[in-house]
Amino acid sequence: MQVTHSLKKSKRIKPKTEVHGFLRSPCAVACTLDLVGDKWSLLVIRDLLRGNVTYGELQKSPEGIPTNILADRLKRLEAAGIIAKSAYQEHPVRYVYGLTENGKALRDVLRALVRWGKKHIPGTLTLERPALHSVRKRRPTRKQDRKS
Amino acid sequence: MQVTHSLKKSKRIKPKTEVHGFLRSPCAVACTLDLVGDKWSLLVIRDLLRGNVTYGELQKSPEGIPTNILADRLKRLEAAGIIAKSAYQEHPVRYVYGLTENGKALRDVLRALVRWGKKHIPGTLTLERPALHSVRKRRPTRKQDRKS
Repeated sequence: MQVTHSLKKSKRIKPKTEVHGFLRSPCAVACTLDLVGDKWSLLVIRDLLRGNVTYGELQKSPEGIPTNILADRLKRLEAAGIIAKSAYQEHPVRYVYGLTENGKALRDVLRALVRWGKKHIPGTLTLERPALHSVRKRRPTRKQDRKS
Repeated sequence: MQVTHSLKKSKRIKPKTEVHGFLRSPCAVACTLDLVGDKWSLLVIRDLLRGNVTYGELQKSPEGIPTNILADRLKRLEAAGIIAKSAYQEHPVRYVYGLTENGKALRDVLRALVRWGKKHIPGTLTLERPALHSVRKRRPTRKQDRKS
């Protein structure tokens, strides 16, 4: 099974802000939060840092992301140039999601969040999930990966 | 004018998670996002990193935070042990907000967000606001600081 489009190509993000002015302010914190400032986006990015994964694999994360929120966040993160999806199967089409170079650079934000959480919230840890199965190793089931 | 309670005392955060189990998972990222994972909390923390500020001063931030959201976030961040308020005037009571030691440690998260934003979103910058006036230097007006 082969991923048909490279996820590695990265382009400079061109948000609405360039055309219509900044959503809230030109502050880099505010603009970054406009893209990933919610309870779920950075968890999706956390999972994608482990490699390309399918929709079904993202759904299995321990936080139990609701499917409508997962679909919405994938769409928004793709529009923002943070993730990219590629078809790894044509009939029927199946997608695998991965981070662009811009998305991978969010690793530093996640590391800072992990450090703060582990130090200040008792009992938290760096999530050591079993490595997500690569689409090269495992054929997704119909049930898991119906979504694009 | 003197701040009557020290903002420097810091306590280990004891979220609901210790009693009722983690809200979503024991992942340090997920638990940190449960506290500050929204579009506004980290902007409030950004402003408080510059020193103790009044409600009115927080309202003046360029993102134009709605007053109901500001009041809600201050309450939640205080409950989480990230910020603390202290009365600096008794009759009528007026409060100044500041970060606890736990809150100050979120500086690393903000730095990572700034770095990512400046590199990947064109036109963004580190917000160089005029230094917020200290309550020691300036008496707040009634209009600005009616809220607690």
